[in-house]
Amino acid sequence: MEMLENAIKDRGTIIGDTIVKVDSFLNHEMDTALLYEIGQEFHRMFKGKPVTKIVTIEAGGIAPALMAGLAFNVPVVYAKKQKSLTMKGDVYSESVYSFTKQVYSNVTISKDRLSADDHVLIIDDFLANGEAAAGLINILKQAGATVAGIGIVIEKSFQPGRTRLEEKGIEVVSLARIAKISAGQIEFLKS
Amino acid sequence: MEMLENAIKDRGTIIGDTIVKVDSFLNHEMDTALLYEIGQEFHRMFKGKPVTKIVTIEAGGIAPALMAGLAFNVPVVYAKKQKSLTMKGDVYSESVYSFTKQVYSNVTISKDRLSADDHVLIIDDFLANGEAAAGLINILKQAGATVAGIGIVIEKSFQPGRTRLEEKGIEVVSLARIAKISAGQIEFLKS
Repeated sequence: MEMLENAIKDRGTIIGDTIVKVDSFLNHEMDTALLYEIGQEFHRMFKGKPVTKIVTIEAGGIAPALMAGLAFNVPVVYAKKQKSLTMKGDVYSESVYSFTKQVYSNVTISKDRLSADDHVLIIDDFLANGEAAAGLINILKQAGATVAGIGIVIEKSFQPGRTRLEEKGIEVVSLARIAKISAGQIEFLKS
Repeated sequence: MEMLENAIKDRGTIIGDTIVKVDSFLNHEMDTALLYEIGQEFHRMFKGKPVTKIVTIEAGGIAPALMAGLAFNVPVVYAKKQKSLTMKGDVYSESVYSFTKQVYSNVTISKDRLSADDHVLIIDDFLANGEAAAGLINILKQAGATVAGIGIVIEKSFQPGRTRLEEKGIEVVSLARIAKISAGQIEFLKS
């Protein structure tokens, strides 16, 4: 997605050889027009699938997932990283490691937010090692739901996330695929 | 906003006399069509103001803020409750108490995401004691930005948040105002 690749190149900040900070348009400040187009693009890529629900993980995934939900006209569920007082009772839960934050989070979805009839498109802002997506897949498996596919805004293709997910037989679509970050330059794969 | 009041009555779950759980349509599962209308309604209520940016707080505020950002065609910034590895450098920070989660969070916004030229509409999902909104106002004050107003999805009018904010001279618009929760029934104020 050219508009997104341009935003990453022009407005992202490279940190070392593995991190590109996109908090100027994606996960701190959010470019609403770009996110709207991201939602539309996910719809174009997955509209052949019978998607009944979109699932993501707080907080970075909420905006692209919501825009995809708007395009599909389906509800969006975001997994929480911390149980709140109002989240009593039965939840599906998985422990997920964040390399960016260097912490384990307990990722939870209330049981009454998922059903075995759901065909779920998983959306997230980043795919690197695939920890978050794998955790969500396990939660969907617990609910008996079908994974319709995984839509990622920015994939770090030099990390093993995509391979891990494809080995589970799941279709992964990433709107921008970073092949390499080196000497302050970003190289994209054709997606 | 009638559509919202109906959702609260029909799809919310009352817990005791102070909490209504809305995770079936607002802050866990999100009804995308309802959220779109919420964004439009915020735009109708504040379109007379020169809004350049919308600011909210993760995670519950992101969806209504994003939909308002779409309606205003302005960027949305969400304050983070935890510093991430990629969030180095100068940040504005305030300590905010959450009555729902019974914890203090350090709420932060990167300095380069706000400017003294910004006219900021604050959006949040709930207003109860006004802690989160007051924290965001202090952050905006640090940045020298102008607070254009505060838009709230659900106000608990029996708690002191609105009064605290209005005493600061700030316009508060809430799309649903809960006067009272009693014996499993919700009474709304006319907004």
